[in-house]
Amino acid sequence: MSEPIKVAVAGAGGRMGREVVKMVLQDDKLVLAAAVDRSAELMDAGLLVGLPACGVSITRVLEEALQNSGADVLVDFTIPAFAYSNTLAAITHGVRPVVGTTGFTPEQIKELDELCQSRGIGGLIAPNFSIGAILMMKFAAEAAKYFPHLEIIEYHGDQKLDAPSGTSIKTAELISEARRELKQGNPNEEETIEGARGGYYDGFRIHSVRLPGVFAQQEVIFGAFGQSLKIRHDSYDRAGYMPGVNVAVNKVMNYTGLVYGFEHLMD
Amino acid sequence: MSEPIKVAVAGAGGRMGREVVKMVLQDDKLVLAAAVDRSAELMDAGLLVGLPACGVSITRVLEEALQNSGADVLVDFTIPAFAYSNTLAAITHGVRPVVGTTGFTPEQIKELDELCQSRGIGGLIAPNFSIGAILMMKFAAEAAKYFPHLEIIEYHGDQKLDAPSGTSIKTAELISEARRELKQGNPNEEETIEGARGGYYDGFRIHSVRLPGVFAQQEVIFGAFGQSLKIRHDSYDRAGYMPGVNVAVNKVMNYTGLVYGFEHLMD
Amino acid sequence: MSEPIKVAVAGAGGRMGREVVKMVLQDDKLVLAAAVDRSAELMDAGLLVGLPACGVSITRVLEEALQNSGADVLVDFTIPAFAYSNTLAAITHGVRPVVGTTGFTPEQIKELDELCQSRGIGGLIAPNFSIGAILMMKFAAEAAKYFPHLEIIEYHGDQKLDAPSGTSIKTAELISEARRELKQGNPNEEETIEGARGGYYDGFRIHSVRLPGVFAQQEVIFGAFGQSLKIRHDSYDRAGYMPGVNVAVNKVMNYTGLVYGFEHLMD
Amino acid sequence: MSEPIKVAVAGAGGRMGREVVKMVLQDDKLVLAAAVDRSAELMDAGLLVGLPACGVSITRVLEEALQNSGADVLVDFTIPAFAYSNTLAAITHGVRPVVGTTGFTPEQIKELDELCQSRGIGGLIAPNFSIGAILMMKFAAEAAKYFPHLEIIEYHGDQKLDAPSGTSIKTAELISEARRELKQGNPNEEETIEGARGGYYDGFRIHSVRLPGVFAQQEVIFGAFGQSLKIRHDSYDRAGYMPGVNVAVNKVMNYTGLVYGFEHLMD
Repeated sequence: MSEPIKVAVAGAGGRMGREVVKMVLQDDKLVLAAAVDRSAELMDAGLLVGLPACGVSITRVLEEALQNSGADVLVDFTIPAFAYSNTLAAITHGVRPVVGTTGFTPEQIKELDELCQSRGIGGLIAPNFSIGAILMMKFAAEAAKYFPHLEIIEYHGDQKLDAPSGTSIKTAELISEARRELKQGNPNEEETIEGARGGYYDGFRIHSVRLPGVFAQQEVIFGAFGQSLKIRHDSYDRAGYMPGVNVAVNKVMNYTGLVYGFEHLMD
Repeated sequence: MSEPIKVAVAGAGGRMGREVVKMVLQDDKLVLAAAVDRSAELMDAGLLVGLPACGVSITRVLEEALQNSGADVLVDFTIPAFAYSNTLAAITHGVRPVVGTTGFTPEQIKELDELCQSRGIGGLIAPNFSIGAILMMKFAAEAAKYFPHLEIIEYHGDQKLDAPSGTSIKTAELISEARRELKQGNPNEEETIEGARGGYYDGFRIHSVRLPGVFAQQEVIFGAFGQSLKIRHDSYDRAGYMPGVNVAVNKVMNYTGLVYGFEHLMD
Repeated sequence: MSEPIKVAVAGAGGRMGREVVKMVLQDDKLVLAAAVDRSAELMDAGLLVGLPACGVSITRVLEEALQNSGADVLVDFTIPAFAYSNTLAAITHGVRPVVGTTGFTPEQIKELDELCQSRGIGGLIAPNFSIGAILMMKFAAEAAKYFPHLEIIEYHGDQKLDAPSGTSIKTAELISEARRELKQGNPNEEETIEGARGGYYDGFRIHSVRLPGVFAQQEVIFGAFGQSLKIRHDSYDRAGYMPGVNVAVNKVMNYTGLVYGFEHLMD
Repeated sequence: MSEPIKVAVAGAGGRMGREVVKMVLQDDKLVLAAAVDRSAELMDAGLLVGLPACGVSITRVLEEALQNSGADVLVDFTIPAFAYSNTLAAITHGVRPVVGTTGFTPEQIKELDELCQSRGIGGLIAPNFSIGAILMMKFAAEAAKYFPHLEIIEYHGDQKLDAPSGTSIKTAELISEARRELKQGNPNEEETIEGARGGYYDGFRIHSVRLPGVFAQQEVIFGAFGQSLKIRHDSYDRAGYMPGVNVAVNKVMNYTGLVYGFEHLMD
């Protein structure tokens, strides 16, 4: 039997971070090597997430954790402002990054990939760890070959800051690559209320709904002569991402270079 | 047994107008008194709609039809540019208007109402003759009392010119009157693609989807702690409005003044 | 300012019971008077639900709790087998029952109502404490007057024992009372797979979907010439019922007799 | 430029048959060779479908039409009772069958395939000519590999005779082949109204909704920990199938043997 994988968690006090800590502590093939959070007070990481004490205290400085914990993997669910430097630090210390934070530029991804290559380690940056969301994106791209007329509607909680969501933009990119070029709708269309037709992306539209009680939902709707096709994914809570994070932590041990998008880890 | 009601149809060659002609010819309590269309060639109105000849030819000038046909009711599904003058002409000739065309200003409605009152006849201007759509609006307004957080998504064919739809704006008005004042969402929200959050209406958002194959659909979604409520109406074709037009033609005979909105004809 | 209401909780260790305990402890107009659970070990009720200790230990015998705690209200989310005797015991001790458990017969409800009347206290038995679900039922009953053709689809977690759900049966009852008598569908319809057409209720059908990840959802779909109307409610978690339970605990102090159905507490 | 394909239509007076006649007459790469309907009176096929006279009269006897018309392809949308003998007759006369009628047994399909092979001609039997429906089935089968818990809900008009629909059974077959064996739900589940849980198919359930105003809709819902995935196809009218029938008429000229399922004609 193989050694358990040692996992450090950045953003351990955040909502996703807590789920990751819980998942790591409950999987006996994983070991919690470190738990870092800039704002969390010094306390046991197990207690923080409602589990028995685990002997690992939350610390504030990522660098120290990367240096001292012997971590194999760093799982980062922090905020765009820190994600790049956290990932850079992890790779520099030979720790494989598994990053769920968004906001990386293509240049940053390229640079981090080269760094992973030169260190001989794997890494993953994924805007979405949900298998259902990934299937939705894949099916949407395939349907767009036959049904080039489509719109995206995404739903998130009403306190979300950015619109449209990272997942919807990723979906839009995949659709754009798959379908023939097309500017949908009536060329003389007029908005009597500005913005009603949604955000424009390469000929089609993205609509962002923000409501309390919603966690994360997305629908891609295709319209054609006499028919419509809809692909919809609903996420109900953060725990729903953990099976994907778990797969990523395991897979990242076995390849070299930085992968962008969880879908590339599915066969 | 009562006399059949004599009905003139303006816009008889249009898509809605044809349905009205068909409906009138197939109801033995109604008689087709005149069928007017500016662009239609002189032909029998029955043949135009795929029925046996009915002896009424399409004519081009509304005034003449109003004067000569002895019509009790004018059903008008034309375009915003003509609707006001058509309605004015009808009332002036003592013919009750039943108007499905949109674009009237509040001042015009007030003026036409006063004219109806002074002539002692009824009239109806309705952006929607669909009983299902009206129930949707009614339920949405009622739900907004308990669930003030909501968004509207409306779907129409991809050649529709205006967004948002008349029905969605009417729904928004009814909701605004029913709910407490509220500006939804995160005050610091940012659109990375302009328009993604939809059209702003009194604190909430309206999203307009335009796709081929869709006739007319609308969904009002309410979000609250741990739950959501959706009210959705789908119209599949123009014939679905005719039961409502038929009710209107009958009811308009029995009251005085101009009613705005079919819902006021439902008990 | 009025005295806080003293609340006893039966089934305090269950999933709904824990939410009730949490809700009571977090509302300073309520006091936790007792927490009873047949299977829970003696521990502090606050700790049980992840809150600080509150000084009330879980006990096993309801009778004792009713006798000694001075409770004004008993909230019961147990199981059908105990709900009747628990409710009976509460009323006998002058404690107002607020019961979310299903399975009461009409005779039992009548008997318990008479007992409430004779004791001069209020009580509530409600299959559903969700304001959204109640609006759904109300709108469905109203729509059925105009659109008598309908079906109900309800969705719950895949470990639920009974089908159809209590909420769907309650909805069906309300619809039956509202619409004209009608046996829907083709009289010569044949099921090539038994049960495909769902459960028969007074001329229409109820379909029960059971899937992991779903908490509680219901859709009532109305079909008519050229259109359909859908009313859908989604519950995402048990906490979503607590606003309703809170309202019930307060209202039950102010009337006499047993009310069946939370909707009667809404104006 | 190639010769136009000569098409005979069986069931030409039926609702699908009329759409086929219309489609053939409007495509200048196709020629209407014969139009057969047992119950139709002798009249011009063009007039029957609301187009100008085309010089082809409806006849009653398929054999004669196959013998005399020089047809390359027979499109058959009749009823299960006639479909087998019609198809047999077509192949015997060297006319390629394109069949949208359901109800063939595996033995019949095998026999007809052998006959096509021996005659050196192509043929197609397809329960569904809708590209959207086929994508839905394909995506559903693929999703079932990752999300083995699912249910199917299909919606048709309220006069449909059989439940579940042919498309839903086809979908169920494809899912069964793709997912691991699984008997879903609680083993102790009880139906308080018989049939509520739908029709049982290899461990999962199919629900058939029948409502006026609906043409043909289907939804496959997958449920997993914290998420759900839905794939939904809506058909609004028969004309929506004609692009698929047109593709089939063209493709059947270029292969040998009987293909079952339109999906095999998509790349």
